[in-house]
Amino acid sequence: MESFMIYVPLVMAFIGLAFMAFKRSWVLKQDAGDGKMKEISDYIYEGALAFLKAEYRLLAIFVVGASIALAGISFVVPTTHILIVVAFVFGAFFSALAGNMGMKIATKTNVRTTQAARTSLPQALKVSFGGGTVMGLGVAGLAVLGLTGFFIILFHYFMGGVWTSTEQMTIVLETLAGFSLGAESIALFARVGGGIYTKAADVGADLVGKVEAGIPEDDPRNPATIADNVGDNVGDVAGMGADLFGSYVATVLAAMVLGNYVIKDMGGSIADAFGGIGPILLPMAIAGFGILFSIIGTMLVKISSDDAKEAQVQKALNIGNWVSIVLTAIACYFLIDMMLPETMKMSFFGEGLQEISSMRVFYASLIGLFVGGAISSVTEYYTGLGTKPVLAIVQKSSTGAGTNVIAGLATGMISTFPTVILFAAAIWSTYALAGFYGVALAASAMMATTAMQLAIDAFGPISDNAGGIAEMSELPKEVRTRTDILDSVGNTTAATGKGFAIASAALTSLALFAAYVTFTGIDGINIFKAPVLAMLFVGGMIPVVFSALAMNSVGKAAMDMVYEVRRQFKEIPGIMEGTGKPEYGKCVEISTKAALREMMLPGILTIGFPIAIVLLGKLVYADNNQLIAEMLGGYMAGVTVSGVLWAVFQNNAGGAWDNAKKSFEAGVLINGEMTYKGSDAHKAAVTGDTVGDPFKDTSGPSMNILIKLTCLIGLVIAPILGGHDAVSKTEEIELIQMIDGLQPAQSVSKEVSVDKTNTDGKVKAIVTITTVTNDEAPVTTTETVEGTEAEVDAKIEELKKK
Amino acid sequence: MESFMIYVPLVMAFIGLAFMAFKRSWVLKQDAGDGKMKEISDYIYEGALAFLKAEYRLLAIFVVGASIALAGISFVVPTTHILIVVAFVFGAFFSALAGNMGMKIATKTNVRTTQAARTSLPQALKVSFGGGTVMGLGVAGLAVLGLTGFFIILFHYFMGGVWTSTEQMTIVLETLAGFSLGAESIALFARVGGGIYTKAADVGADLVGKVEAGIPEDDPRNPATIADNVGDNVGDVAGMGADLFGSYVATVLAAMVLGNYVIKDMGGSIADAFGGIGPILLPMAIAGFGILFSIIGTMLVKISSDDAKEAQVQKALNIGNWVSIVLTAIACYFLIDMMLPETMKMSFFGEGLQEISSMRVFYASLIGLFVGGAISSVTEYYTGLGTKPVLAIVQKSSTGAGTNVIAGLATGMISTFPTVILFAAAIWSTYALAGFYGVALAASAMMATTAMQLAIDAFGPISDNAGGIAEMSELPKEVRTRTDILDSVGNTTAATGKGFAIASAALTSLALFAAYVTFTGIDGINIFKAPVLAMLFVGGMIPVVFSALAMNSVGKAAMDMVYEVRRQFKEIPGIMEGTGKPEYGKCVEISTKAALREMMLPGILTIGFPIAIVLLGKLVYADNNQLIAEMLGGYMAGVTVSGVLWAVFQNNAGGAWDNAKKSFEAGVLINGEMTYKGSDAHKAAVTGDTVGDPFKDTSGPSMNILIKLTCLIGLVIAPILGGHDAVSKTEEIELIQMIDGLQPAQSVSKEVSVDKTNTDGKVKAIVTITTVTNDEAPVTTTETVEGTEAEVDAKIEELKKK
Repeated sequence: MESFMIYVPLVMAFIGLAFMAFKRSWVLKQDAGDGKMKEISDYIYEGALAFLKAEYRLLAIFVVGASIALAGISFVVPTTHILIVVAFVFGAFFSALAGNMGMKIATKTNVRTTQAARTSLPQALKVSFGGGTVMGLGVAGLAVLGLTGFFIILFHYFMGGVWTSTEQMTIVLETLAGFSLGAESIALFARVGGGIYTKAADVGADLVGKVEAGIPEDDPRNPATIADNVGDNVGDVAGMGADLFGSYVATVLAAMVLGNYVIKDMGGSIADAFGGIGPILLPMAIAGFGILFSIIGTMLVKISSDDAKEAQVQKALNIGNWVSIVLTAIACYFLIDMMLPETMKMSFFGEGLQEISSMRVFYASLIGLFVGGAISSVTEYYTGLGTKPVLAIVQKSSTGAGTNVIAGLATGMISTFPTVILFAAAIWSTYALAGFYGVALAASAMMATTAMQLAIDAFGPISDNAGGIAEMSELPKEVRTRTDILDSVGNTTAATGKGFAIASAALTSLALFAAYVTFTGIDGINIFKAPVLAMLFVGGMIPVVFSALAMNSVGKAAMDMVYEVRRQFKEIPGIMEGTGKPEYGKCVEISTKAALREMMLPGILTIGFPIAIVLLGKLVYADNNQLIAEMLGGYMAGVTVSGVLWAVFQNNAGGAWDNAKKSFEAGVLINGEMTYKGSDAHKAAVTGDTVGDPFKDTSGPSMNILIKLTCLIGLVIAPILGGHDAVSKTEEIELIQMIDGLQPAQSVSKEVSVDKTNTDGKVKAIVTITTVTNDEAPVTTTETVEGTEAEVDAKIEELKKK
Repeated sequence: MESFMIYVPLVMAFIGLAFMAFKRSWVLKQDAGDGKMKEISDYIYEGALAFLKAEYRLLAIFVVGASIALAGISFVVPTTHILIVVAFVFGAFFSALAGNMGMKIATKTNVRTTQAARTSLPQALKVSFGGGTVMGLGVAGLAVLGLTGFFIILFHYFMGGVWTSTEQMTIVLETLAGFSLGAESIALFARVGGGIYTKAADVGADLVGKVEAGIPEDDPRNPATIADNVGDNVGDVAGMGADLFGSYVATVLAAMVLGNYVIKDMGGSIADAFGGIGPILLPMAIAGFGILFSIIGTMLVKISSDDAKEAQVQKALNIGNWVSIVLTAIACYFLIDMMLPETMKMSFFGEGLQEISSMRVFYASLIGLFVGGAISSVTEYYTGLGTKPVLAIVQKSSTGAGTNVIAGLATGMISTFPTVILFAAAIWSTYALAGFYGVALAASAMMATTAMQLAIDAFGPISDNAGGIAEMSELPKEVRTRTDILDSVGNTTAATGKGFAIASAALTSLALFAAYVTFTGIDGINIFKAPVLAMLFVGGMIPVVFSALAMNSVGKAAMDMVYEVRRQFKEIPGIMEGTGKPEYGKCVEISTKAALREMMLPGILTIGFPIAIVLLGKLVYADNNQLIAEMLGGYMAGVTVSGVLWAVFQNNAGGAWDNAKKSFEAGVLINGEMTYKGSDAHKAAVTGDTVGDPFKDTSGPSMNILIKLTCLIGLVIAPILGGHDAVSKTEEIELIQMIDGLQPAQSVSKEVSVDKTNTDGKVKAIVTITTVTNDEAPVTTTETVEGTEAEVDAKIEELKKK
């Protein structure tokens, strides 16, 4: 029996998209200002489009190449269906669409925020946060729409919309993994490319414009200025959006995969009001309701007084955020209570099957919500303006750039302590509560309010841009003051957003990791086996090298920009006098090309290494797929552990340096003396910030995608390394171990695969039955059955019982 | 039957120590110069002694405390013998003795090298390398003497000098682990304390002396100058010596433990010409012969021409080094061929027992020798003067300190790629060749020439000091030119020495890790179990936080030094005029105290975390020792993987920055312009070097000890978590799995422990027999037997057979 619940997330997604459309038209209806404001904003919009065009051209090639590879896999591996290619292409397309949409609205909202700031602060917040809301709901809506829609299609295609078996559902979910892989691949390009782009444009514009030509920052005569402003959108809006789109999809997918194995642990089928797939639908339902609560949350973000300061704005954001989180927690209670069996059987390592009450799953989801918030708070402590660690960096600036850099590095490094402890506690406790399904649902609950998180994240760069436009258009000082308040709050939310992103990526990766182990049917990942340990080392090294490549790329891309700006200054007549128009698009294209070129190597590293390990394993161990699967698992664990550490280290060090530098704007007390911008200490702090820029905007945030993509690739490769066959092997071993006193055991497991074709009511089915008896070679028999649908089904049942 | 071979390493150790004594008296007989030279040298010598005194006072307290804790463990855990405390104290004492000896000779050799440099370069090399040789042979000789001596004593005490069983030998080796633990604990203090000391004194002396008082570097009026010079010895000589002493002992121990399990895999006993313990004696024999070959190697290090340049000196060192390595390789062939059975049975995971020819062990040892050299070469490539990565950092210095720092960080990060690949390949291939015994013997072969490595390492700082003394004593320019050549070569060997140290530490840790798993008798470490995975994360975080603490400590300790120097300048009359004598000892003590105080927290972190994990595990899982052992194993793996990465990253980044800065001394070509010291680019490079200093001299090298000590603590805790009981459990499972068709299995394992006392020929023995039958509670019976030695032995044999 099919249930209405499967369509609920779809409905929620449509509500989200409808609200987004409504909000979008409201934002676009706002006054976009006049003259110079509009002109600058148009340049940024054009630049962003130029970037998207160049990016999509390159990504299209990548998608085609990857699709061919995936199609190849689906021909070789019987359990991988060709539909995975379709899912992959759609995943890539949806991710690109979400990025496109978000960036377009952001580049339209910036000037409207400036204009609104001419009237009042509450109005400016309303407009900028409105743009953020559009972005957030667009990403979340498309994610839920795509994932749920595809699931429904595949569920009907493979299983006729009715629960049959875990094996069949595994094929559905494996195909669905293609959607997630597509989304995450695009995210890799968007995040890394965007990160390189924004820093290359920033540095390039500064070096030639400010230093060589002596024109101020954000001067429209500088051809790279627009690229610089585009960069903010490319990196902070589109990059973050693609990242969270990928996390969102991957989290829900991983939880669905683990839900499928809960059903398997319960005997292969359950009777519930949801067509027997309650544990699989639950994560989608939570995601769907999360959209609804995010909408409610966004509605609460408002201030009334024009005299409001940062604290009030932050409070408004916090209220909206916490309301959506609390509503999600409440919804989790009811959804879990309703959709899960009161008690479930879950298999725990070494402890066999255990009875788990559904409330324990709820507690796990609460832990997820708590840890997401706690890690954000830790991030804020280590990177926020006026906090102890940041003030310590400020003090160290007085003895030069060297001590400032050491202090910043040490702060980032120490910040891994509470983060990892929180994280380890979350893994341990959610697993203890409800196995890896508990871990996955913790991640799902955390990610449920993604729309709200993104709205809060995106409003920052929008306000930043708005301030830039106000400055360039020489608007009255109070306009800039208002946008500055928003921008300042945006800096804080950017840092905590990064904390949220890495926390969610880490939990998602773990859930994917668990799904991978269950998919491949291995007994676990034993790092005492030397090849597995070797791969753990290799995996641990990848995030470090990836970060280094990204950092070096920023340097190289910035140099390309420098040469282009120099060329334009020389070749375009009247550019310095303001009569010749700089070719902004050229700079944008140069920066785009450099960014995309430079991210090839990190991309190859990410995608190539898991494949190389499988090939190497096949070369050495031929058919010992179990060992190869463990090696790949060791690699995944290495990437995840090291990736989380380097993400936290780089993000927090970068954030701390940034705010240490910003502290000088209001003045700081060093050795009893007030010290301001322009002092030697400030110059030292600027050096630290320069080091921190690629840390926090390029390599650090890329770690999220690196670990998720690595685990996703593992999941897609999983069927090559054993898949279903191995699953039944594990069952056998458990069976044998359960026999008390070790009596002679006769263990038989059967695998039945049916290939049914229906031609005008005449059904023809090829039934392949593989019988595995312990310690004997498996026997495979194939029979062809023809007749009406009912006849064929009856005969198949007969064959199965033989 | 006992074999002479057990005494061979002892003989080698005595030969090494005798040659050391001979060399030492030769060095001390050399002319120590006159007047000012002697005065300065005496200050450094006194300062070094002051440091040692303060250090040993504190360490004595630590040793007492740790001994009490160990004694407590030995009372609670039946398989841990109280003698472990004695072994621990001796290990600590020997390590301290080796450090003391090395530092004394280094501080005596420096001035003699200066004096020798007045005559010729070959003579200067002879003296400085002679000092290094004394240090190297002292460390290696004491290590082999202590370890072998203790092994012989324990072997006779517990087993009467005759092979009885793997279980008995395990008790011997577990007690011997105390020696290694003692050595490594002292190494932790020496390395971290020394690292903080040297950088604190360096920075402190510069900040007050050069910047505030305006007196030149190394000016004897600066009270911190001597501390600065002492620091070179404390960090580079004593720290490195203690580090390698610890590695040496731990490596040989781990290989012995794994050798014991080879015998177990072969049925519990073997018949060979070495009393049936050939595989256990082999690593000691290799270590012994390594001393001999190191002596030969050191004899070959000489140059003949006074006009020699760096290349010739480096060549002389290389010849000595390679000869000792090749001789070790040849000796390995004959020793392995002689001491191991032609084919051995080793159990491999999932593949059961396999026949392994002894030649495969030899190939593993060759891989160890190769990888040690290769990792040193990689280090040289990333940090050497004039290499591509270092020149790239030089180029980036032209755009400021920020880009210089980014380039240095990226270089250190990228250098993890070849290092980890080499390392992973070594683990994989040596394991494939001969299991974890192969991994351990690879490490043993690599460490065999420790004496030679240390001689090469120690001659660098000696020459550095010699140059300083020449400068301060205003000797003719050619003296300084000669010592500069030696110093420059010393910089290269210091970097490659660090590569060697981390490679050996990593392999040693792996061998210890393998010994731990075998000790605890767990089936492996399955990171798919959530608590184990959580601990992998926590372990990965520890090296990062440890490094941050060490870096912050340098800053704090430097500040203490600044205050003390300021105080002396103010309070001691005539100090600036050269009539008042500065209290060098005070500065040394301040620096020492600060260093030792500051290293408490990293020390607690290192020692406390493994214990905390076991306590937490006991709290949650009560008697599920297997799971707790796996959790601790996951932690150890996390520390090792992350520790290796951070060591390589920090050492190589620091080395690269250092040489990038040094490149400016001879001048570098930047954008077509020759750039020298004092330029803006040089200033940027100095900033990079400041950041790199704590990286390469404090936190980076500490990683070695962190990972070794963590694994050693695990090994000592191992008996609490199951030990022999679990070992027989594993045997049972194997037994059961071997029974075809899963017949009902009757598996009985007995554990017999005998407590014999001999009073004037009358022997009294208490025999405890524990019988474990599968699925039943173990039964323990105790009987007392009295009579003559022969009667008692006969009765015991009777009881055993029951």
